[in-house]
Amino acid sequence: MTPSGNDVCLRLDEVRDLAYSVLNRAGCDEDNADAIADTIFKAERDGAHAHGLFRLPGYVASLKSGKVDGRARPVWERIAPSVLRVDGANGYAPLALRTLRDPLVELAESQGIAAAALIRTHHFAPLWVEVEAIAERGLAALACTAYKPAIPPAGGAKPVYGTNPLAFAWPRPGGDPMVFDQASAVMSRGDVMIAARDGRPLPEGVGIDARGRPTTDAGEVLKGAILPFGGYKGAAIALMIELLVGPLIGERTSPEAKAADLEDGGPPRGGEFILAIAPSRFGNPGGWADKAEALFKEILAQEGVRLPGDGRRARRARILKEGVTVPGDLYRTIRDLT
Amino acid sequence: MTPSGNDVCLRLDEVRDLAYSVLNRAGCDEDNADAIADTIFKAERDGAHAHGLFRLPGYVASLKSGKVDGRARPVWERIAPSVLRVDGANGYAPLALRTLRDPLVELAESQGIAAAALIRTHHFAPLWVEVEAIAERGLAALACTAYKPAIPPAGGAKPVYGTNPLAFAWPRPGGDPMVFDQASAVMSRGDVMIAARDGRPLPEGVGIDARGRPTTDAGEVLKGAILPFGGYKGAAIALMIELLVGPLIGERTSPEAKAADLEDGGPPRGGEFILAIAPSRFGNPGGWADKAEALFKEILAQEGVRLPGDGRRARRARILKEGVTVPGDLYRTIRDLT
Repeated sequence: MTPSGNDVCLRLDEVRDLAYSVLNRAGCDEDNADAIADTIFKAERDGAHAHGLFRLPGYVASLKSGKVDGRARPVWERIAPSVLRVDGANGYAPLALRTLRDPLVELAESQGIAAAALIRTHHFAPLWVEVEAIAERGLAALACTAYKPAIPPAGGAKPVYGTNPLAFAWPRPGGDPMVFDQASAVMSRGDVMIAARDGRPLPEGVGIDARGRPTTDAGEVLKGAILPFGGYKGAAIALMIELLVGPLIGERTSPEAKAADLEDGGPPRGGEFILAIAPSRFGNPGGWADKAEALFKEILAQEGVRLPGDGRRARRARILKEGVTVPGDLYRTIRDLT
Repeated sequence: MTPSGNDVCLRLDEVRDLAYSVLNRAGCDEDNADAIADTIFKAERDGAHAHGLFRLPGYVASLKSGKVDGRARPVWERIAPSVLRVDGANGYAPLALRTLRDPLVELAESQGIAAAALIRTHHFAPLWVEVEAIAERGLAALACTAYKPAIPPAGGAKPVYGTNPLAFAWPRPGGDPMVFDQASAVMSRGDVMIAARDGRPLPEGVGIDARGRPTTDAGEVLKGAILPFGGYKGAAIALMIELLVGPLIGERTSPEAKAADLEDGGPPRGGEFILAIAPSRFGNPGGWADKAEALFKEILAQEGVRLPGDGRRARRARILKEGVTVPGDLYRTIRDLT
């Protein structure tokens, strides 16, 4: 750890250890603290600071309030031939996701395609961590989740849908998977929160205030609504996600999650929907990888074009070498969490 | 049929009969002509003119050129426990889709979730027709397909991805399903073609010309590129669709489809990916429908807000009463197709 003016520089193993010890002290058992710390480590490693240490105070707040069980033991069962359900037992999502990974990969490999429905979890982390881990096992993966109302329906001004991210990963034998993870909102709530914390204005078109008026003030947008990306089309995707992670699997929609939440600073209880697809079972077992690489090559032939996730992987390479810079205020807040 | 100035008014049964007889005369057998005419009928019924009679000259062109087999006999097989493959036998997609519907619905009901991979088909119709038919059977459905390059990758100017629509339908017991069907492009290629035909300018931000410059000239956009909706996020969805309907199932990506196409005015050969999800098998068999209706109610509580597909269903109600108005030029072109 090297202090640098107001900021603090941490190596990645220090990030992981810091997260683990804070979570463990706050009531997480070893398995839960380890799974959450690993997610925070991966977020900081890839420069996704809005999902990294920045979230620790929220994680701790919901352990302290009793909303989330730091000793949860997630349990999975096969509820249909191609469907797993994972009961997160009211804990944070990372341990539930770790629990389902092997059975989901095995089920998709045997069935061709398989879905996992996560219930009774509290999701506070980026989805790309999850789909990337499945794609590293050679499968394509899609995941989505809801949160609390942030996005208005098309034509409306009052938030109903969560920022509702959709993540997708495609395996690339011999290399890192192609991964994207995008909020249905123009900007993720995490990034709006970071802007509000730093007092930075948002770009035009990101949000509206509580009275439905366009604003670039991040604090006002947090009280109002974040707009869907691409207008009504992004709103339609947000709605699809609500249906998959709420009614379909018997968990809360974003409005239900908010109504039931303690508002203690941590994430509400909610659901997640994950799809795993085995390319070896879809009729092109010998050719899928090369055909995808040919497409990637065609895309990258244009100057200035990158694949989704390439920027994140470039940040990863840099941060693995250089470590993480943590704002001093955040570092002190985390250090003082008990 | 009632002439009205230059336009021609047709009843919906006349639309279907006209499409059937034109296709049958052009080389389709009864099953293929019936399946395609039904799709054209549904497009016109719902006011989706860009996918209705407007497409008949293209359908006929590819029958005449020999690119598409009007007597194709699609065949399905189960290639993994939860995956069907349908070989369209080089015909148009509607008969292949009709062929797979029963087995896909049955497979999803038994497995919880099932996918269908369509290969060797020529797709020239709207996806909502397909997902709506599955949702009318009580399942949720998602479908996507590619075409020929129309959208540049994020940061690029040269088209790589097709307009790549994504459609989703959610069953509503006792009512019509909630359905959306949206191109990954800001505007569908069909709508750009209609604007070009009518000499109407496009809104700003829809497309760029062959040299990458923004333009509102629909003809120039057809030579250049249509932009993805929501910027890089829409482009990421277009890429995901390419991977699912190309490499995964062993069919052509949009660039491959264009390279192999005769450019005879009809659709290229390509693939389609369909997912059917049985809400009765995801852990909330007794509650999924009511929970979704509660969400829809919350959405509709805001003034001026509609659900995706509500506009289309309103057009359906009107057109079922009033019939279809066909531009005179189009009517004469179709009548003279032999």
